[in-house]
Amino acid sequence: MASLPPTATDTTPTPAPRDTLHFPPTHQAQLAPYLPSPTTTKPSLPHVTLTFATSLDSALALAPGTQTLLSGPQSKAMTHFLRSQHDAILVGVGTAIADDPSLNCRLEGVGGYGGRELEGQPRPVVLDPMGRWDVSEESKVIRLAGEGRGKAPLVLVSDCNMWREAGEERRKLLRSVGGHYIWVPSTEVNGRHVMEWREIFSTLHDLGIKSAMVEGGAGVINGLLEPRNAELVDSVVVTIAPTWLGQGGVVVSPPKRVDQDGRRVLAARLKDVKWIPLGEDVVVCGRLGG
Amino acid sequence: MASLPPTATDTTPTPAPRDTLHFPPTHQAQLAPYLPSPTTTKPSLPHVTLTFATSLDSALALAPGTQTLLSGPQSKAMTHFLRSQHDAILVGVGTAIADDPSLNCRLEGVGGYGGRELEGQPRPVVLDPMGRWDVSEESKVIRLAGEGRGKAPLVLVSDCNMWREAGEERRKLLRSVGGHYIWVPSTEVNGRHVMEWREIFSTLHDLGIKSAMVEGGAGVINGLLEPRNAELVDSVVVTIAPTWLGQGGVVVSPPKRVDQDGRRVLAARLKDVKWIPLGEDVVVCGRLGG
Ligand SMILES: NC(=O)c1ccc[n+]([C@@H]2O[C@H](COP(=O)([O-])OP(=O)(O)OC[C@H]3O[C@@H](n4cnc5c(N)ncnc54)[C@H](OP(=O)(O)O)[C@@H]3O)[C@@H](O)[C@H]2O)c1
Ligand SMILES: NC(=O)c1ccc[n+]([C@@H]2O[C@H](COP(=O)([O-])OP(=O)(O)OC[C@H]3O[C@@H](n4cnc5c(N)ncnc54)[C@H](OP(=O)(O)O)[C@@H]3O)[C@@H](O)[C@H]2O)c1
Repeated sequence: MASLPPTATDTTPTPAPRDTLHFPPTHQAQLAPYLPSPTTTKPSLPHVTLTFATSLDSALALAPGTQTLLSGPQSKAMTHFLRSQHDAILVGVGTAIADDPSLNCRLEGVGGYGGRELEGQPRPVVLDPMGRWDVSEESKVIRLAGEGRGKAPLVLVSDCNMWREAGEERRKLLRSVGGHYIWVPSTEVNGRHVMEWREIFSTLHDLGIKSAMVEGGAGVINGLLEPRNAELVDSVVVTIAPTWLGQGGVVVSPPKRVDQDGRRVLAARLKDVKWIPLGEDVVVCGRLGG
Repeated sequence: MASLPPTATDTTPTPAPRDTLHFPPTHQAQLAPYLPSPTTTKPSLPHVTLTFATSLDSALALAPGTQTLLSGPQSKAMTHFLRSQHDAILVGVGTAIADDPSLNCRLEGVGGYGGRELEGQPRPVVLDPMGRWDVSEESKVIRLAGEGRGKAPLVLVSDCNMWREAGEERRKLLRSVGGHYIWVPSTEVNGRHVMEWREIFSTLHDLGIKSAMVEGGAGVINGLLEPRNAELVDSVVVTIAPTWLGQGGVVVSPPKRVDQDGRRVLAARLKDVKWIPLGEDVVVCGRLGG
């Protein structure tokens, strides 16, 4: 598969808009060992960074289908710094629908924020096997792509009937800003189309994406934290805010795991751990260990 | 109510046993603002520190009724340092049954660990409204009290019929090492005897306990994190280990909370937050904010 052409934008640097973020070099240096680099390059898979923000009770949001502001301004700037270091940001369709996310990078100096063209802007990727995301002209990610402040999204789909039917308008809209529907094979499990994560990442690699930051939500994160997917994840960066959202939230917690004698064991563990206090929050960096 | 007399032990300092722990003064200093001190003394309630260790997915243990080693050696030493700074350690009966906990302090220099008598040893308190804890000569806390390496427990009960029936043997055993059953009033809610936390703490205060460290488990912690109990809690110290236990664990997450318009809001939030990396773990200290 050939690499995607860059999306069309003008070529002069834009003045930085008011929502431009700054992340200090000292903090950038602390994250360096966990970032994609020539030494972490793999032949057929991107460097994958799994990153998200939770409360102390491991919740991403107060309730399904809602967005909750969890982390402080420094952590937000860190997320945008991380975005600037990756070729793509991936989210599940649950997040695309609940949050209408921007999925661009607002760090000072990247394209659209003081930089040239779309330099440093990651490619938004939405995992949407059944084509449930009703992407429209009002979707933030489409508006930002139109304004030259973000790249146009790739939507990974599997159920062709579904998106062929409802999707011709959406496909045209995506194409108009430089986005694409990409087909990825899946297996049907209880009426859902489940893609293999290895397949997802190797497809992205074929499309020229050498590093991907996976941002959520819970369905996506819990899937990637399963032991069989651990080798696909190169770094984990979790922000923890000093709050408890309370029962009934959207929770990060991988499926339970048992050893060969049927005894429960840890579901996942980080190694090469570094804790970085950042404002009121803490950021934990690590790699998925055995 | 008069203060309890100290429990009987010999008066010469014991040599420090092999399981003696050390917590460096630099780390002790970081915790100082959150410890009981003359400035945090209240007229009729003890200084209460809520402290526990969780995984990244906010679990205290892999499954109900089981104990899981979560935090590393430095965090363990910290817990014992905290114990040395409090007059009492409180746990719920769920923890007493599941863990058979020692509830003593093994920090270098306290009584039984290189120090004199029971100096620096906290009083174990077990919250056991129905008298479910089958305390026996084999219980660690009883053995340690007998060996002069910990104080004898106070057991807070409510259902007199229950513990009068099964309890005469247990009461004698407790008394033989210097422990007591203490009656605290309760309200019956769905067959359970629920005590008010204010009542629990003021009873302890009357017994001469000016500071109490509440260590768990989930039932106790989630109750104290409810907004109506927040003013009873002076400090919170949570250790987080870089692991995910996975679904089905014993989870810290307070009941959900809604505002006057019925909208979900944060259940609890820490203020005066300090994050202290400690080995592979992090410790977050704070106070319960509004
Ligand atoms: N705090 C944070 O950092 C953060 C970040 C992101 C999101 N969030 C929050 O998370 C919540 C959304 O989480 P969520 O769990 O509902 O949704 P999600 O993880 O964003 O999306 C889940 C959906 O993605 C698809 N999917 C996941 N794994 C797949 C696989 N292996 N193969 C094929 N499809 C797959 C499935 O779609 P189908 O159902 O169509 O099969 C699945 O239902 C929102 O409340 C959002 O605000 C928080
Ligand atoms: N990682 C850690 O730091 C840590 C620390 C401690 C415990 N743990 C783990 O936590 C688990 C135990 O937790 P748990 O939730 O089962 O038990 P728990 O919190 O230790 O005890 C709960 C019980 O205490 C009594 N109780 C609590 N609040 C009360 C109130 N306001 N009034 C009267 N009685 C009250 C009730 O007894 P009744 O049922 O008789 O009414 C309740 O069921 C174990 O797996 C243990 O290993 C972990």
